[in-house]
Amino acid sequence: MSLATLDVRPQNIPHPPTDRAAKKFSFEQIAQHIGRNEVATAAIFYGQAKASPEDITNLASLLEIPQEVLEDQLSGFPDRGKSVEMPPKEPLIYRLYEIVQNYGYAYKAVLNEKFGDGIMSAISFSTKVEKETDADGNNWAVITLRGKW
Amino acid sequence: MSLATLDVRPQNIPHPPTDRAAKKFSFEQIAQHIGRNEVATAAIFYGQAKASPEDITNLASLLEIPQEVLEDQLSGFPDRGKSVEMPPKEPLIYRLYEIVQNYGYAYKAVLNEKFGDGIMSAISFSTKVEKETDADGNNWAVITLRGKW
Amino acid sequence: MSLATLDVRPQNIPHPPTDRAAKKFSFEQIAQHIGRNEVATAAIFYGQAKASPEDITNLASLLEIPQEVLEDQLSGFPDRGKSVEMPPKEPLIYRLYEIVQNYGYAYKAVLNEKFGDGIMSAISFSTKVEKETDADGNNWAVITLRGKW
Amino acid sequence: MSLATLDVRPQNIPHPPTDRAAKKFSFEQIAQHIGRNEVATAAIFYGQAKASPEDITNLASLLEIPQEVLEDQLSGFPDRGKSVEMPPKEPLIYRLYEIVQNYGYAYKAVLNEKFGDGIMSAISFSTKVEKETDADGNNWAVITLRGKW
Amino acid sequence: MSLATLDVRPQNIPHPPTDRAAKKFSFEQIAQHIGRNEVATAAIFYGQAKASPEDITNLASLLEIPQEVLEDQLSGFPDRGKSVEMPPKEPLIYRLYEIVQNYGYAYKAVLNEKFGDGIMSAISFSTKVEKETDADGNNWAVITLRGKW
Amino acid sequence: MSLATLDVRPQNIPHPPTDRAAKKFSFEQIAQHIGRNEVATAAIFYGQAKASPEDITNLASLLEIPQEVLEDQLSGFPDRGKSVEMPPKEPLIYRLYEIVQNYGYAYKAVLNEKFGDGIMSAISFSTKVEKETDADGNNWAVITLRGKW
Amino acid sequence: MSLATLDVRPQNIPHPPTDRAAKKFSFEQIAQHIGRNEVATAAIFYGQAKASPEDITNLASLLEIPQEVLEDQLSGFPDRGKSVEMPPKEPLIYRLYEIVQNYGYAYKAVLNEKFGDGIMSAISFSTKVEKETDADGNNWAVITLRGKW
Amino acid sequence: MSLATLDVRPQNIPHPPTDRAAKKFSFEQIAQHIGRNEVATAAIFYGQAKASPEDITNLASLLEIPQEVLEDQLSGFPDRGKSVEMPPKEPLIYRLYEIVQNYGYAYKAVLNEKFGDGIMSAISFSTKVEKETDADGNNWAVITLRGKW
Amino acid sequence: MSLATLDVRPQNIPHPPTDRAAKKFSFEQIAQHIGRNEVATAAIFYGQAKASPEDITNLASLLEIPQEVLEDQLSGFPDRGKSVEMPPKEPLIYRLYEIVQNYGYAYKAVLNEKFGDGIMSAISFSTKVEKETDADGNNWAVITLRGKW
Amino acid sequence: MSLATLDVRPQNIPHPPTDRAAKKFSFEQIAQHIGRNEVATAAIFYGQAKASPEDITNLASLLEIPQEVLEDQLSGFPDRGKSVEMPPKEPLIYRLYEIVQNYGYAYKAVLNEKFGDGIMSAISFSTKVEKETDADGNNWAVITLRGKW
Repeated sequence: MSLATLDVRPQNIPHPPTDRAAKKFSFEQIAQHIGRNEVATAAIFYGQAKASPEDITNLASLLEIPQEVLEDQLSGFPDRGKSVEMPPKEPLIYRLYEIVQNYGYAYKAVLNEKFGDGIMSAISFSTKVEKETDADGNNWAVITLRGKW
Repeated sequence: MSLATLDVRPQNIPHPPTDRAAKKFSFEQIAQHIGRNEVATAAIFYGQAKASPEDITNLASLLEIPQEVLEDQLSGFPDRGKSVEMPPKEPLIYRLYEIVQNYGYAYKAVLNEKFGDGIMSAISFSTKVEKETDADGNNWAVITLRGKW
Repeated sequence: MSLATLDVRPQNIPHPPTDRAAKKFSFEQIAQHIGRNEVATAAIFYGQAKASPEDITNLASLLEIPQEVLEDQLSGFPDRGKSVEMPPKEPLIYRLYEIVQNYGYAYKAVLNEKFGDGIMSAISFSTKVEKETDADGNNWAVITLRGKW
Repeated sequence: MSLATLDVRPQNIPHPPTDRAAKKFSFEQIAQHIGRNEVATAAIFYGQAKASPEDITNLASLLEIPQEVLEDQLSGFPDRGKSVEMPPKEPLIYRLYEIVQNYGYAYKAVLNEKFGDGIMSAISFSTKVEKETDADGNNWAVITLRGKW
Repeated sequence: MSLATLDVRPQNIPHPPTDRAAKKFSFEQIAQHIGRNEVATAAIFYGQAKASPEDITNLASLLEIPQEVLEDQLSGFPDRGKSVEMPPKEPLIYRLYEIVQNYGYAYKAVLNEKFGDGIMSAISFSTKVEKETDADGNNWAVITLRGKW
Repeated sequence: MSLATLDVRPQNIPHPPTDRAAKKFSFEQIAQHIGRNEVATAAIFYGQAKASPEDITNLASLLEIPQEVLEDQLSGFPDRGKSVEMPPKEPLIYRLYEIVQNYGYAYKAVLNEKFGDGIMSAISFSTKVEKETDADGNNWAVITLRGKW
Repeated sequence: MSLATLDVRPQNIPHPPTDRAAKKFSFEQIAQHIGRNEVATAAIFYGQAKASPEDITNLASLLEIPQEVLEDQLSGFPDRGKSVEMPPKEPLIYRLYEIVQNYGYAYKAVLNEKFGDGIMSAISFSTKVEKETDADGNNWAVITLRGKW
Repeated sequence: MSLATLDVRPQNIPHPPTDRAAKKFSFEQIAQHIGRNEVATAAIFYGQAKASPEDITNLASLLEIPQEVLEDQLSGFPDRGKSVEMPPKEPLIYRLYEIVQNYGYAYKAVLNEKFGDGIMSAISFSTKVEKETDADGNNWAVITLRGKW
Repeated sequence: MSLATLDVRPQNIPHPPTDRAAKKFSFEQIAQHIGRNEVATAAIFYGQAKASPEDITNLASLLEIPQEVLEDQLSGFPDRGKSVEMPPKEPLIYRLYEIVQNYGYAYKAVLNEKFGDGIMSAISFSTKVEKETDADGNNWAVITLRGKW
Repeated sequence: MSLATLDVRPQNIPHPPTDRAAKKFSFEQIAQHIGRNEVATAAIFYGQAKASPEDITNLASLLEIPQEVLEDQLSGFPDRGKSVEMPPKEPLIYRLYEIVQNYGYAYKAVLNEKFGDGIMSAISFSTKVEKETDADGNNWAVITLRGKW
């Protein structure tokens, strides 16, 4: 058994996608290339999701990194949860944390009311980010969390 | 200026909706009665959202609580953020926290890519909870976060 | 929606089973009476598991507490995770914590090896405690954790 | 006296089994080779268990590492407890932590009831991981903890 | 020597201005009545500033509280710093905290450059809050901090 | 997508402006050169603000650093919030933290009173530092925070 | 099963031996009366050790408290570890903590050297406090810890 | 003035006695050679005790390290307290910590009773570790703490 | 043995000297009356120093509190260290904390240089506060710490 | 603007005065050479005080370090507060911390009584360490803190 060894320690977070950065690919482009949504694609780069063998093959060809090198870095099981130090200091990530802090019990109450006792899985789970622009030209970020009960 | 005085300290969280509980209303029913979505309705009860004067009038009539009593409890500005102690120990709420911890940088990367530098507001913000049942009969909780950029 | 209101705050933990204590029932006896295993039974008393309507009826008759009183205390959704302050100071509970601290990555490695990527659920989960006595007369506590992958 | 010097600091956890990884042995295979169960075997690699001289000899031959090198790394006394930072952020390990947090007092109550005052040892202790598949094809992870009282 | 005994413990923060609330005075009105700015006035109510004898006389007459009662509560030396638990969970207060977290070294660098080595006093210090509305009708909160070097 | 890679970890804070230091430019001079105020300029150096392409061009010419090098360091999205460890130990920065701690609820009360429910943005936000000298020759630091409501 | 309900929460520590204090018994006298050493006797009063039925009978007669009352308080299983908040602020207790902090690895090294891998039990354990006076009239406190390996 | 520069940072703890390990001396042997007890000897190696000039001379000859090298490392004043991170995760060291946590107030009560107000010094202090084997062949670790009152 | 039961918990700190406050005695006056310095006198009121029987007699007569009442509150051994929660939030007390934080190693270096290895006792210790006014009319607080080496 | 770049991170504290150590100067000797008191001199070496240009010239000549090198390290503004991790683990520094913890409110009470509301500055501040030997030959460390009110 081997664990993925992409270095995802907090202090290195700004650095991971060096090779990719050199290539100037956006996550949107990479996502299209490997056939996953953007958040899942970024999660692979931040060490939070497992790359399948096809992901690795596709990434290697797109990023022009030798397949063995990428395999070495990405083929293990993710050692998740190390990328964000809690409470998050990054303002954008903090806003998500704040939503949990403020609405936590409201979510629980409504979820329990709708589904009974139990939890929403964070593992059998998918998520996506969308952009909406309203009539006044304001942009809205829409994040959808979908987890099995 | 007065602050809302509904007692939302962590140790009291299980107790707030006593009167309502006596009435056996669900948040769904209350939400319909006051014309808000369920999460926003629950957030008023957990001291995380401001009740408008109409909310108070409507709640008073539905819950059969004298309007002055409810006004006293709910008409101030919410002293938010006190209901969940972080990190959350409640498993359901922890799952949401875990999503922020694991996907935080992936969300940031994709949001920055789509919207440029900035943040998603947690204040000019709305959220809802929906229930989906798939072909296999499995239930899925879908939480949508929508914040102004 | 209502949450269970049995007072499970840390400082009250020594007190919960007052009525039961007066009755001098052991968790083993209560467990037999309500048809659950002992740990699940104790978990109800510590506010960590949901009591079904039958549990409440059975407990009310066994403990000779009026059914409405018990319903009031136990029929809501558990607000879990509040009974143990972490890290646990209680030596017996600390030993379990120490096992997680020391063997955590070994468990993860072996579980990933056996099951692939994913987690063992702590919700679709059951657990039991057994007593073994070996040939030398030594007692061994055997705790079994069984969670869905 | 010497302490084992395998570098088990949190930030290095993903890296330890490099040589082994190169060899592509699973813990199951290593465990069979050295005659220990898998969790105990993994615990040696994560610096949580002492390797006996035979373990070292067996590992050296299997992994094709010079015996002196391995002796240097593994023959001291383990400086335990450094592999998991608490609370664990890794979701799989967190689930075990959550079990202690939620069921801690229930375990204590049932153990005290069965064994009297005292504790379950985490040192005179063994543990194993098993896989069960139920009639519906669901997999269940079964972890057994067995400690002297 | 006596300390001010107005109860300013975190959990009581929402409650302090009860009598005043009954009177429905805003801090703006109270500030005008006692001849201080609004922030300083609110700071007295939250136990962070010393009330002078005239403040007490003026407050007593405005709020129609017997002077001895108010003297008892407010005439001591403030036991400052207890009203906000850090990091602040209240979103509005968190934003101020975030400014310190993000701009801290930038402020230090510019202040050192302008004033040399030293600090800006937080005691020989005054502060005010103003409201600006720009051409697009947007409101801006302007907080000014003025401290002796 | 790429993140700014200027190394802004706490332990490196004293070092960032090495090249600049060699040049002996003050932030005031750099600010004039790039047409921003001094705090915003320092914030770029401490990794808390995004440098625009023109900022990078201007900085490269002023500091005589090859443009590509600076682009590499500064053109990504800032990974904010890492420069100050909270609570701040640096006395000057602590004074700002202390202001939030002591006046937090007073600010909230006055802001809510003036603007209603909501928050002052820390993102649609500008700030400046000024120096005043009073009649007695004492220097006063004046920090202005201006955020959208 | 019942837990001892003597209230041993930190904030109550100064109060436990009220009845005894009224009687003006020293722990030395109580210890002689119940046939235990002084530290074990004090540990019962601080909720850290289990009182046997004879202890309760003896204490009830010595302290002139009705046996049922004492039984109610002391006959359960101790919920240990709640009396000292760590790190201890009390200077005398801090000194013991400091010894662990400074000599921890030295003890481990010497114990491992003498006993091999393992731990000294803190449960199969006894301890005592003695007073020595040296030739110069200086007093020395001698604390002996004796635990099974 | 110079401080001892032996690198005693937590993450290096497993490494210090490299040279000695190479020599395969036990602390018992070193202790005999330098005429100190074993714990004090180990404490020098872990940076918690000051080595006298004779200690250095004796250690240099025993370990066959040039005296200047050792002098450089050991002749300064110890920067104590850095070897154990609290709470200790190492199970053996944790057991000592647990004793302080559980028996802290019992020790204080008995010590105050025997010696009056004051503390046991952790500086004018000596300690030793002994091994006892009882009639049943069980080993007992006996740690004695002796501090001036 | 009995511990002093004056309630010195953080949240009560503002309240202790109620009776005294009623009497309007300053610590200076009380100090003169009982023949101790002011800091030691205040320390008795804050539960940090032991009151001798004469102190109690003198305080009882000065404060006109029945001697038995005061004896009950003050005659036990102080349970020290509970009055200030660390880090201190009170600005005045924080300044003292900041001095330790900033000058800690400088003090250690100079003390070791002057006295050799060891510590300054905080128990065989006295302290006083004095007021100086310089030629410009500025007031200076002078705190002297005197501890046995 | 430049910050002093002497590396004062906690883990490096034992190392700073290498060059000086090589020279075997005591802080007393350096202090005499640069005309400052010993604590202020040590504070420069630990990065807590600003060295003036003359200090640098004098230190360079005394320590025989090229002036430019020292200027590079010492001429910036100190990034204070990083040398001691709080709570301090070093026993000598802890004793000073303990004094603040125990006497904090007593100091505040007496200072407020003597000076009115306000604080003692830790910036317009000087401090010194002296050695006294009493009639019995005991040494006493006397630390004086003098801060502007």
